[in-house]
Amino acid sequence: MPPSNATDVFDYVVFGATGDLTMRKLLPALYHRFRDGQISDRARIIGAARSPLSGDEFRGRAESALRRFVKPDALDDDLVRRFVAMVFYCSVNGAEAESSWDTLTRLFGDTEQDRIRVFYLATSPDLYGRICGNLSGHGLITDTTRVVLEKPIGHDLESARAINDEVGRYFEEQRIFRIDHYLGKETVQNLIALRFANPVFERLWSADAIDHVQITAAETVGVEGRGDYYDHSGALRDMIQNHLLQVLCLVAMEPPGSLGADDLRNEKLKVLHALKPITAADVPHVAVRGQYGRGLVGQEIVPAYLEELGEGRQSDTETFVAIRAEVHSWRWGKVPFYLRSGKRLPSKVSEIVVQFRETPWSIFASKLEPNRLIIRLQPEEGIQLSIMNKDPGPDGMVLRQANIDVSFEKAFSTRYPDAYERLLMDTVRGDPVLFMRRDEVEAAWTWVEPILKAWQDKPGSLHHYGAGSWGPAAAHDLISATGHAWHEEMG
Amino acid sequence: MPPSNATDVFDYVVFGATGDLTMRKLLPALYHRFRDGQISDRARIIGAARSPLSGDEFRGRAESALRRFVKPDALDDDLVRRFVAMVFYCSVNGAEAESSWDTLTRLFGDTEQDRIRVFYLATSPDLYGRICGNLSGHGLITDTTRVVLEKPIGHDLESARAINDEVGRYFEEQRIFRIDHYLGKETVQNLIALRFANPVFERLWSADAIDHVQITAAETVGVEGRGDYYDHSGALRDMIQNHLLQVLCLVAMEPPGSLGADDLRNEKLKVLHALKPITAADVPHVAVRGQYGRGLVGQEIVPAYLEELGEGRQSDTETFVAIRAEVHSWRWGKVPFYLRSGKRLPSKVSEIVVQFRETPWSIFASKLEPNRLIIRLQPEEGIQLSIMNKDPGPDGMVLRQANIDVSFEKAFSTRYPDAYERLLMDTVRGDPVLFMRRDEVEAAWTWVEPILKAWQDKPGSLHHYGAGSWGPAAAHDLISATGHAWHEEMG
Repeated sequence: MPPSNATDVFDYVVFGATGDLTMRKLLPALYHRFRDGQISDRARIIGAARSPLSGDEFRGRAESALRRFVKPDALDDDLVRRFVAMVFYCSVNGAEAESSWDTLTRLFGDTEQDRIRVFYLATSPDLYGRICGNLSGHGLITDTTRVVLEKPIGHDLESARAINDEVGRYFEEQRIFRIDHYLGKETVQNLIALRFANPVFERLWSADAIDHVQITAAETVGVEGRGDYYDHSGALRDMIQNHLLQVLCLVAMEPPGSLGADDLRNEKLKVLHALKPITAADVPHVAVRGQYGRGLVGQEIVPAYLEELGEGRQSDTETFVAIRAEVHSWRWGKVPFYLRSGKRLPSKVSEIVVQFRETPWSIFASKLEPNRLIIRLQPEEGIQLSIMNKDPGPDGMVLRQANIDVSFEKAFSTRYPDAYERLLMDTVRGDPVLFMRRDEVEAAWTWVEPILKAWQDKPGSLHHYGAGSWGPAAAHDLISATGHAWHEEMG
Repeated sequence: MPPSNATDVFDYVVFGATGDLTMRKLLPALYHRFRDGQISDRARIIGAARSPLSGDEFRGRAESALRRFVKPDALDDDLVRRFVAMVFYCSVNGAEAESSWDTLTRLFGDTEQDRIRVFYLATSPDLYGRICGNLSGHGLITDTTRVVLEKPIGHDLESARAINDEVGRYFEEQRIFRIDHYLGKETVQNLIALRFANPVFERLWSADAIDHVQITAAETVGVEGRGDYYDHSGALRDMIQNHLLQVLCLVAMEPPGSLGADDLRNEKLKVLHALKPITAADVPHVAVRGQYGRGLVGQEIVPAYLEELGEGRQSDTETFVAIRAEVHSWRWGKVPFYLRSGKRLPSKVSEIVVQFRETPWSIFASKLEPNRLIIRLQPEEGIQLSIMNKDPGPDGMVLRQANIDVSFEKAFSTRYPDAYERLLMDTVRGDPVLFMRRDEVEAAWTWVEPILKAWQDKPGSLHHYGAGSWGPAAAHDLISATGHAWHEEMG
């Protein structure tokens, strides 16, 4: 008997199927869902890309990807064989309405019209509109067809609007799934549970009790092979505009009326609208950008960003961003939300640090550290509450900070599904709650754009930092100017 | 060099030195403090009791006690030898002003007048007055002399007053140390740190956020050899009037102005005064008493209370008490404080359960369990916060209760000193903060007395429960009548 979460039979078409995302994330995610019985053997996973591969060649790549990116204990020869048998390939030039589309079209005979159909666009965003046009032109959009758009949706407000307009010509908004894989992370979803299922947290969740919030996404890697893409994007577009602002929305939003997609996204949108606008004049005071030079990460000497780009290249693209944001609302008043993301930092960590206000008064001789709730998104999803305790001993009241720490993976003794597993199944189920609505994406661009513009107008504002450090000194100054410290600098 | 917490040289005289408390608790506690360098080799520990023992005989008993009650890894032959060399014995009839006092008096030559002197009375409370009289009569009370009184201080308000009056004739209040070893427990002291060094807790600490509080002290043992003492006391006098009310005070009190003895004890006293008086008419509705019958504790069939007392004995002494108390104050409004203590219960556990109010509204399909903060006093001191989390998985928002649990002993990777270690050193240092002031003891008796009286007048109100159960069904009814459940009955 299929499990209760089994999906209806579907055809899943991935454009850009030969790319890294498909191999590393999408195929392993679908395999895991198949392994748990959530996907029928009758489903089809159709790779689409320009390369002239045979079906067997693509299936060979798919199988290699599984063997490489699925943990050995989840691999099972029979399951892999059955899964790979569901994989097809179609050589198609998504951008051109040429005859290559016929092959794809032929895959959808009349008998398949009632199947759920998902088109996942893992291509360059400037192809989204044309692919959708072709899908429409070849009659491939049925009543149960959805389209999934990978980030980035544009590189500024205008281009985002253009993409949204174009895709919107062929798909209604509720069929468009703009993916932000951060929203599929267990701990990010758990933010909703932590806040609205636990009065102990929600009662503390405002400027009354909270001093400031830090949201950090730090990577140890550089740009490596992705230099050409990255150099046109930078950390602000690549991380802040989508992932970190989405996390900020979930931290800051009011309780939604329900878990329905529109109730939740309306609340997130309200947060984006409540973000204090950053003007060109503000930028030097509230935003810092940096680019890594050569340095030591772990035991390894790593090249500078410019060296990774290629010999003789010049660039003022930022690989590090720190911003002081404010949510102007009754709940948040003037509580700063510090956002920070960078490459080539000392450790790979994504976390939300909620620092509470100090005690109004202390009767203790010991210095009191403020309480902090740390919600770790990676590497090991979990939460940590730092509190002051009596230092055990036969003397007086000496206090010491202690951390109450839970790794969810250990606590639940269960495998944590990858973000894409949940999100791909949502696209099949047609549930857009964890996807970005058009107005959210555009509101995020609206807030980010003055910063982009100010930096573009003033290339001199790019700070340098050594790879393996926590970013430029200016990021330290940014937060210490308001009396705070980044989490790793805290006592 | 002695450690910074080294005490001044002292003479510690224990009356009732051949008893269980001295061997099991006091000598091991002093040994541990000696081992940590807190006690000088020049200090003396003087056992006083009626038995005609020689010094060597008593030293032999002391050494056996250490070898039995100190953990092997803390035993060191040289230290034991040095410690035992500080032990003396004096055969004295504390109650009579006879010549046996001369031996004791001779121990304190003129040269020893400036030493700190502590008289620890581990005898029957009806001797306290006469011993103090003798101490005074023999000129043994110097400017730096303290007296320590073990519980029970009387068996009702009148007898407590009489003892306090009598002892007060010879000692000023600040030299009288009424010991309640619960106050020496690390976790009980940590209550003060948790509440007043952590805004995350103190902000939640009122009727606004807290639904009710449970304070439980459960024992698995019966009365065994202590039947004669216990039968005159019962659980209300033995546990509730002192230990559990003291814990309640620390949970419920307002922030004290300082950690000074009077500031802290004034706040505790305010709580005792704010306890809603329980009238004779209230008793059947808010208090339950029980006595264990024969039953199964663990794998062992254990005898009934009456069988333990001795053949043919009858008694309506309670071995189990449950009470619903209320602290009538702005902070606590009508929040119930459930107190419960009993012998022959299924497990040995002392804990405070702070149950928070439910969410005002839920957007989740899953049933939400209320948040609970559990402060464990024993067996393993620590705290646990139960929260609702998202159940990890690729489907919707299914919630599950998870416990964030910290054992302080494990967290601090340090030996937890026994309550008596701290308390004995406080008597040497002359710090009464963790001892009960006269007015506290009497206020506690004042509150408890109508219950004692009602039960005395109505012996029929004694419920029976099987050893190894959580007390009589009436205790369940007591708490369920107000819509609650004892912790071990909770979901």
